Amino acid sequence: MAELETFENPHPGRDYVIRHVAPEFTSLCPKTGQPDFGTIEIEYVADAVCVELKSLKFHLQAFRDVGAFYEDVVNRILDDLVAALSPRRMTVTGAFTPRGGMHSTVTATYEAGGT
Amino acid sequence: MAELETFENPHPGRDYVIRHVAPEFTSLCPKTGQPDFGTIEIEYVADAVCVELKSLKFHLQAFRDVGAFYEDVVNRILDDLVAALSPRRMTVTGAFTPRGGMHSTVTATYEAGGT
Amino acid sequence: MAELETFENPHPGRDYVIRHVAPEFTSLCPKTGQPDFGTIEIEYVADAVCVELKSLKFHLQAFRDVGAFYEDVVNRILDDLVAALSPRRMTVTGAFTPRGGMHSTVTATYEAGGT
Amino acid sequence: MAELETFENPHPGRDYVIRHVAPEFTSLCPKTGQPDFGTIEIEYVADAVCVELKSLKFHLQAFRDVGAFYEDVVNRILDDLVAALSPRRMTVTGAFTPRGGMHSTVTATYEAGGT
Amino acid sequence: MAELETFENPHPGRDYVIRHVAPEFTSLCPKTGQPDFGTIEIEYVADAVCVELKSLKFHLQAFRDVGAFYEDVVNRILDDLVAALSPRRMTVTGAFTPRGGMHSTVTATYEAGGT
Amino acid sequence: MAELETFENPHPGRDYVIRHVAPEFTSLCPKTGQPDFGTIEIEYVADAVCVELKSLKFHLQAFRDVGAFYEDVVNRILDDLVAALSPRRMTVTGAFTPRGGMHSTVTATYEAGGT
Amino acid sequence: MAELETFENPHPGRDYVIRHVAPEFTSLCPKTGQPDFGTIEIEYVADAVCVELKSLKFHLQAFRDVGAFYEDVVNRILDDLVAALSPRRMTVTGAFTPRGGMHSTVTATYEAGGT
Amino acid sequence: MAELETFENPHPGRDYVIRHVAPEFTSLCPKTGQPDFGTIEIEYVADAVCVELKSLKFHLQAFRDVGAFYEDVVNRILDDLVAALSPRRMTVTGAFTPRGGMHSTVTATYEAGGT
Amino acid sequence: MAELETFENPHPGRDYVIRHVAPEFTSLCPKTGQPDFGTIEIEYVADAVCVELKSLKFHLQAFRDVGAFYEDVVNRILDDLVAALSPRRMTVTGAFTPRGGMHSTVTATYEAGGT
Amino acid sequence: MAELETFENPHPGRDYVIRHVAPEFTSLCPKTGQPDFGTIEIEYVADAVCVELKSLKFHLQAFRDVGAFYEDVVNRILDDLVAALSPRRMTVTGAFTPRGGMHSTVTATYEAGGT
Repeated sequence: MAELETFENPHPGRDYVIRHVAPEFTSLCPKTGQPDFGTIEIEYVADAVCVELKSLKFHLQAFRDVGAFYEDVVNRILDDLVAALSPRRMTVTGAFTPRGGMHSTVTATYEAGGT
Repeated sequence: MAELETFENPHPGRDYVIRHVAPEFTSLCPKTGQPDFGTIEIEYVADAVCVELKSLKFHLQAFRDVGAFYEDVVNRILDDLVAALSPRRMTVTGAFTPRGGMHSTVTATYEAGGT
Repeated sequence: MAELETFENPHPGRDYVIRHVAPEFTSLCPKTGQPDFGTIEIEYVADAVCVELKSLKFHLQAFRDVGAFYEDVVNRILDDLVAALSPRRMTVTGAFTPRGGMHSTVTATYEAGGT
Repeated sequence: MAELETFENPHPGRDYVIRHVAPEFTSLCPKTGQPDFGTIEIEYVADAVCVELKSLKFHLQAFRDVGAFYEDVVNRILDDLVAALSPRRMTVTGAFTPRGGMHSTVTATYEAGGT
Repeated sequence: MAELETFENPHPGRDYVIRHVAPEFTSLCPKTGQPDFGTIEIEYVADAVCVELKSLKFHLQAFRDVGAFYEDVVNRILDDLVAALSPRRMTVTGAFTPRGGMHSTVTATYEAGGT
Repeated sequence: MAELETFENPHPGRDYVIRHVAPEFTSLCPKTGQPDFGTIEIEYVADAVCVELKSLKFHLQAFRDVGAFYEDVVNRILDDLVAALSPRRMTVTGAFTPRGGMHSTVTATYEAGGT
Repeated sequence: MAELETFENPHPGRDYVIRHVAPEFTSLCPKTGQPDFGTIEIEYVADAVCVELKSLKFHLQAFRDVGAFYEDVVNRILDDLVAALSPRRMTVTGAFTPRGGMHSTVTATYEAGGT
Repeated sequence: MAELETFENPHPGRDYVIRHVAPEFTSLCPKTGQPDFGTIEIEYVADAVCVELKSLKFHLQAFRDVGAFYEDVVNRILDDLVAALSPRRMTVTGAFTPRGGMHSTVTATYEAGGT
Repeated sequence: MAELETFENPHPGRDYVIRHVAPEFTSLCPKTGQPDFGTIEIEYVADAVCVELKSLKFHLQAFRDVGAFYEDVVNRILDDLVAALSPRRMTVTGAFTPRGGMHSTVTATYEAGGT
Repeated sequence: MAELETFENPHPGRDYVIRHVAPEFTSLCPKTGQPDFGTIEIEYVADAVCVELKSLKFHLQAFRDVGAFYEDVVNRILDDLVAALSPRRMTVTGAFTPRGGMHSTVTATYEAGGT
């Protein structure tokens, strides 16, 4: 995985919300090897640092050749970002395109000092 | 009914939300035998296991030749999924296409340790 | 008014939500006798019985030749349905098409054991 | 049927297009007696006279208690308006709400000196 | 200002919500004298009386030649309606079209026994 | 297949357009046996007869247990309707829901005296 | 009426299309004196001059206190602009908000050397 | 930065909400010098004064040649407005157009007597 | 590239239109190696054979690791399909997601016996 | 103005359509110096060369500090692109955000061997 870069939070004294939406996400189905497609949405309150956008793009692109269930993809992105940013709170949502006539969404949340 | 298969929840330490939307649902009206059409939406927090998508598709397809009221369809899908997954919580919604100039929606919720 | 028929609630052990939307409602303006048009939305939690759809359609059609203010129409539909179903709770909304450049909505709610 | 009133075309030297859209149309099904609902759209090039809006509203309201097939409703409205206005050309479209899971549209056109 | 007329609340025993939306509002900018345009939305719970629609239309039309800031327009409409209706609660919103590349919304609320 | 019933064209002297849209179509994939879903749109100019709506609904429902490629489904519906109605012209379109990440549409046209 | 100002067409050697859309139009009904509201759309190919936007705005605002039928409003705006600009061709459309449950559109076209 | 002008709050006795949306915002990327584009939304409850719209427009336009991260832009706009207005509370949101396939939103809130 | 499979056209006697839309297309930018994303739409009139959907999916997936300009991608897909199907006519459109604040579409058409 | 770069048309033997849409355009009003905003859409058939996207972006950005009427902006962009590409045909459209309550669009077309 590409390393996530950060920059210093310019307003750490205030709890404010940052949201990045990446509609060009693709990974591989772990069972069939077929490509999956979706939109990843990241919403967080920064503590000391914010994520740098270009490194976030490269990090998400690294899933292009990775086989993983939807449930796993979303939780891994959340874990990676929490490890790099130590945010006050963060939610990651993956909304995936239809497979077998069904479309799926997975949403995972982290709270500092919580789960 | 086709058996619901499951796979191990990859992140059981976290309460996160999984949603599957199936817009290709059809069953039969118990009074007239005419086909009904609708969208089934399933949203849940997994405990030990997640539902496997292909088996979910087959399970919903099994209603194709079943006669049941809207109110019954939604509660039965919820009961079947709760029995197979023992989720922490789950909501099933059925939104049905117009009949007699009216369209109907039914929403049922399960909470582990609750109703 | 056409009588409202009911059928036995198939899952009375669970509080679940049923919604019927009827976009083909018409009544008469009590002042001018001109036709009014709107959408009636009924959302409720059943207790012992559910409303049968065809009888609901006929009940709403019976307003076709009735003159009543919007505020009265919505409250009367709610009163009729509460009398027939004794639901755990119910909300009726009427959204009417523009008259004199304004469009109007009226929403009334009943809670068993409440107002 | 209410009589269609007209007023003198204020710019008869120019072929220009007038369109009236009436989304509050209702008639009766000739087979079941049940109400039908739809939107009537009238587009025409006036010759000597234009249709007065209030009389058009009353004319369309007169179908409220008339039983007629969709195909008949649209052609009759066209015939009535052509008889009253002698327009240079006119198209009437009726777009009806779903019955039996299907929604229907009928479009008929008149050309002066043509069909 | 045109006087606001009222009629007796047909269901005073129940707290229910009435909403009127008037998308054809226009007033004048107090600085430039240029016309302003917007949509006024009124939502309230009636006590003893409801507002009659035609008189409401005339009341809003009376702003056509009045110069007032957006903030003032919305609060004045609220004050006028509260004075005439003594509602249990009421919210007035004005959503105005773009000026200088910006569009503006003002929302004011009254609670009987409150502010 | 259910027989298509017809009624006499009420305005045979005029070429006018009739359109029926059926969004509740389902058939089976001839390769996998899995259900397909789509919307069938029929647009035609009647000659001596029009298609009766209820019989059209039953005719389309008869595909529920039929295995056929999209290309075949649309052409067969067109052939059946042309045989029953001898229309002046007719177009049938089938718009099917996504399979394998792709959604497909097939459109076939008949002209009396033409192809 | 406010005078329409023009500026020299910067590219008279080319037939290109200019469109101005004014959604804030209001005039008065000639029968009731009540305000009408609508959107005026002007599309033209300039010859020697283009219309200056601010003067166009003032010209349209001058209808604020004018009573005129929809059919008349649109043709008068077209006549005024043709007189001021001598365009190669021009179309004016007025789309008005609902009155009596119907909304209306009027479209008039001028061609230099034509009607 | 252009100075923010204010006018006296016409209804200081009431907590009401004012929202201005400016979809024509542009600044520069601090890393590449390339222009960024977005929509700034300001929602607040005034205390003694309201912001004058023209001065707000000029204040936002002053970012046209300023290089700043999204996170910084939004917090600076909030700080400037809080300094000029001393509002009871205020939220500023910036929704920026896609860069590198991702679009971003930043939302910051001020509460008088709070953070 | 995966081979395109075909099946016999079930109605070769009629010119009818087949359209497949693939919103999950991804390739690589030939200059930066970064992934591009878009929707490929294929519309054609078959002659002797139709394209089999699964093989079309695999053929498009084969671009996942190919670097090519938008203009080249669309023309190559058209050339491949024409070679495999010898259609009567075919149009391929690629609509790509924004890069550098701009989004691009390329459309190429083949006519048997034409270009 | 930044120079427009080109690359060799990969399929010069075929007339195919290329469209680039740039929603982040800004220039200055030549009368007030205030910023204008809009979307520029370029559609063309290439001859020997295509425009390179990055250089197109820089070329459009160069209008950021240029004062020009809408009519002039669009024709200048068309002239610059025709000079650089010698396309078979090209259309440039500028759709600008509201000023004074009106929004404007300008569309200019070039045909090789034509105007």
